[in-house]
Amino acid sequence: MLRSRWLLPGAALALGAGLGAALTRRRAGGDAAEGLLGRLPVVPVVAAAGPPALLGSAPAELTKYGLPGLAQLRSRESYVLCYDPRSRSALWVIEQLNRDTLSGASERAACDFQEDDSVHEYHRATNADYRGSGFDRGHLAAAANHKWSQKAMRDTFYLSNIAPQDPHLNQNAWNNLEKYSRSLARNNRNVYVCTGPLFLPRMEADGKMYVKYQVIGKNNVAVPTHFFKVLILEKESGEIELRSYVMPNSPVDDKIPLERFLVPIESIERASGLLFVPNILKRTSNLKAITAGSKR
Amino acid sequence: MLRSRWLLPGAALALGAGLGAALTRRRAGGDAAEGLLGRLPVVPVVAAAGPPALLGSAPAELTKYGLPGLAQLRSRESYVLCYDPRSRSALWVIEQLNRDTLSGASERAACDFQEDDSVHEYHRATNADYRGSGFDRGHLAAAANHKWSQKAMRDTFYLSNIAPQDPHLNQNAWNNLEKYSRSLARNNRNVYVCTGPLFLPRMEADGKMYVKYQVIGKNNVAVPTHFFKVLILEKESGEIELRSYVMPNSPVDDKIPLERFLVPIESIERASGLLFVPNILKRTSNLKAITAGSKR
Repeated sequence: MLRSRWLLPGAALALGAGLGAALTRRRAGGDAAEGLLGRLPVVPVVAAAGPPALLGSAPAELTKYGLPGLAQLRSRESYVLCYDPRSRSALWVIEQLNRDTLSGASERAACDFQEDDSVHEYHRATNADYRGSGFDRGHLAAAANHKWSQKAMRDTFYLSNIAPQDPHLNQNAWNNLEKYSRSLARNNRNVYVCTGPLFLPRMEADGKMYVKYQVIGKNNVAVPTHFFKVLILEKESGEIELRSYVMPNSPVDDKIPLERFLVPIESIERASGLLFVPNILKRTSNLKAITAGSKR
Repeated sequence: MLRSRWLLPGAALALGAGLGAALTRRRAGGDAAEGLLGRLPVVPVVAAAGPPALLGSAPAELTKYGLPGLAQLRSRESYVLCYDPRSRSALWVIEQLNRDTLSGASERAACDFQEDDSVHEYHRATNADYRGSGFDRGHLAAAANHKWSQKAMRDTFYLSNIAPQDPHLNQNAWNNLEKYSRSLARNNRNVYVCTGPLFLPRMEADGKMYVKYQVIGKNNVAVPTHFFKVLILEKESGEIELRSYVMPNSPVDDKIPLERFLVPIESIERASGLLFVPNILKRTSNLKAITAGSKR
């Protein structure tokens, strides 16, 4: 019998995390118990309203050899993240910001970018992938949002929460957007921030639409063409306000007012494959969407 | 208060399917009950070994306004599929083929390509997207694999099981690979077939690696650069054999023997973000991988 090369490191494979459906799910649950969930006495609302376990819907015979992939959730001290093993980064990351999470003495100097070894090695970005690429390791959930806990801040340095970002963007306009999110968190009850990459098509000379993006390093880490940030503001009045931004992954003049990067949430929903509004509307009928030119 | 345009069609939104985490999961379960699961008395193996519900791992406060996206499983008469709302097609589709599923009198002429209205309209492909694109509506789970039931065959015509495919490839080399899968199913106890798109990078003139693919139609349906097909053969002896193929989404000379398209499963696992081997190894220690030039 032939045993091919990839059968040899079986132990390494079995110890990885994203091992198809069952193990991924087990691990996701395990992470959670160590993360925010472990500190929360409340039954998660979504689960309470939910159906039986997702895999319960898969027929036994057909899925005898497992499902090759499912959503890879990571619940950490500072965020919940959905990993995209194909792009080696996140599909989306959600944080909760308020006065409590912004205060504290945690220091960025005590944090290092680290591989996320809960992700299978085939699908994991490494620091080496970024080296010499010309791109920054851009945070999705921002480090400075989590001064309240050194661990929470350190968790933002997992490379699963990082995407290749143009250095000028990262250090200027995008940084301003992050600062603005924090200023909103200081003036509202809560700000929920969801951040992720976009891979937007554009028309080429042949009149056809193409998506084109660079991949860097040995692991082919995808360089997004754009980034989105959706801010869900919970005001003291109870009103919910939505502000959604898109910036290109290229140098952006930081003199341009942030509100110029406001886009209708629908554009982000269509392009990202995600949905925000239906879930928010389950929580409130008092939703106000701020778009460019909106009266505030 | 400003109510922006996208708040108006709220009813339509609320009736869609992929409405973020909770609703998507509920719908996936609902589909399943009508599909294969409804006919199976067995508790699904993966679920039995699994953790509490995935969403149970998300902290209540942080996910107050839902999760913007999770795996979108569809369990149908003929297949289990994981939908990719960003590309408007599937990440993977699994079928189970054997002598029973191949026999029957179902007819392709009685089937029409149809929108998958279990997918949110923002993320759904339509027949209009394909019209005039120059691409075929290429089946992932093949129609002719499911002669055993007219409904099973019809289910393969949902556009969620379809990807834009070069007509020459679809009608020649790829068709031969599908026929070959069926011939294996006639000579083995079972053949599990997993099919999906790939978006592979290549080096451009600047020495950097890029992923580039066309998108078609108003909904920007992604045209894969390649397709994979993984065949898991259950032999009468109980031995498991694995054959994994990749073909480019371009005209392929159908005189080239199929075995030339065999690739190590690891290549597919790395490029697709999926994992097959760890799950199979949970079922057997008797796995034989056929690669190009393997002795058979």
